[in-house]
Amino acid sequence: MAYEEFTIEGRNAVIEAFRSGKTIDKLYLLDGCQDGPMMTIRREAKKQDTILRYVTKERLDQLSETGRHQGVIAVAAAYGYAEVEDILASARQKGEPPFVFLLDGIEDPHNLGAIIRTANLAGAHGVIIPKNHAVGLTATVARTSAGAISHTPVAKVTNLSRTIGELKKEGLWFVCADMGGTVMYQLDLKGPIGLVIGSEGEGVSRLVREACDMTAAIPMKGQIGSLNASVAAGVLAYEIVRQRMMQ
Amino acid sequence: MAYEEFTIEGRNAVIEAFRSGKTIDKLYLLDGCQDGPMMTIRREAKKQDTILRYVTKERLDQLSETGRHQGVIAVAAAYGYAEVEDILASARQKGEPPFVFLLDGIEDPHNLGAIIRTANLAGAHGVIIPKNHAVGLTATVARTSAGAISHTPVAKVTNLSRTIGELKKEGLWFVCADMGGTVMYQLDLKGPIGLVIGSEGEGVSRLVREACDMTAAIPMKGQIGSLNASVAAGVLAYEIVRQRMMQ
Repeated sequence: MAYEEFTIEGRNAVIEAFRSGKTIDKLYLLDGCQDGPMMTIRREAKKQDTILRYVTKERLDQLSETGRHQGVIAVAAAYGYAEVEDILASARQKGEPPFVFLLDGIEDPHNLGAIIRTANLAGAHGVIIPKNHAVGLTATVARTSAGAISHTPVAKVTNLSRTIGELKKEGLWFVCADMGGTVMYQLDLKGPIGLVIGSEGEGVSRLVREACDMTAAIPMKGQIGSLNASVAAGVLAYEIVRQRMMQ
Repeated sequence: MAYEEFTIEGRNAVIEAFRSGKTIDKLYLLDGCQDGPMMTIRREAKKQDTILRYVTKERLDQLSETGRHQGVIAVAAAYGYAEVEDILASARQKGEPPFVFLLDGIEDPHNLGAIIRTANLAGAHGVIIPKNHAVGLTATVARTSAGAISHTPVAKVTNLSRTIGELKKEGLWFVCADMGGTVMYQLDLKGPIGLVIGSEGEGVSRLVREACDMTAAIPMKGQIGSLNASVAAGVLAYEIVRQRMMQ
């Protein structure tokens, strides 16, 4: 599992992690347990908007690495998250039209790490990921990002299509990766842009796709279904880079 | 470990694997062991050009999954290899100028799988990998190739720069991925082409680089050193696709 290095177990350890400002992505709590320390943990979790999962003792035992979970296991992010506003501020500061990656449900930490790496090198100002059904900034993501995670801000939002709506008001256009779209070379991808990449299995979800302005297809000649998500993100990002360079 | 499903242990099992025509990528043998069955195994290995590693009993015990290795552990390829000639024949058959990937020392099976997947979808006719210091067609490679391994031929050669020399006689031009090269949009990448991608850590080796006709750079704006190898392969491959489509 990707999370193993950043699992925090036991009541005091988890309370302390929250109080030290650590970003907790997910919390596994023993279902039905309502004593004082547990209520403190739930209160801290609420403040931080952490995802809560109420599970059985058997599930906790299974997840536990130390065998001493005391009814609570936290999955901590290896790195802190930025705000969407930080990403826009970075573009403004550089005097560049915003270029943002939005990832609709990437679950494989190797893919997320590789995509953050690509975002950094393609000159994107940040990466936006959803809170649910997606991997967060774990140790594996940090490692496979080859250090990019320290330079390229990653923001986590509750609702991707709502964020797209908000960013449209800032002047961004959104292009969604989808096999059924227009061949990418025929689209105008210059200017302020959000590149939306779907999950490995299911692609971009319907609501997010409908929120986008354009749908871009990578031309495909082979016998199989699709490129690896991080490769697809790289190919599309560099078509944006090419068009920006040719301006 | 990537190999676990295709490890074959024990003298009879390994001899039988050789005789059934299975491709064995590597053989770990107990150093100093020279009895009859071991000599048979070494003879079969020589015929197939398998890499031999003479190791201590401790190392074999460590590699062993069954605990009954009897002094020999074979690492078998999940899929068979093609010949370089098969790749050229496929291009001829399709009436297309050859488009080949050459991978100089990719060691991560996830990267090799993703690159074979990209090669398939970009319409390349095959992938050439070196015999040494590189991962072969393991189960992990097969899985991460998403089925591409069954469609796109992969050939394994002893000496990449010699293969480049031979393919030049067939009319191919070779472009090598290197940060110090010409920005890829400025190169002419149409026509019969071999795309050379280096290893994760070290890039393309000197001899291979010197055998190439051109060096292509992906423009990079960020703070970190390089793209993930499979992403870089995808970005370069699709610049070739774009130029071929624009002809």
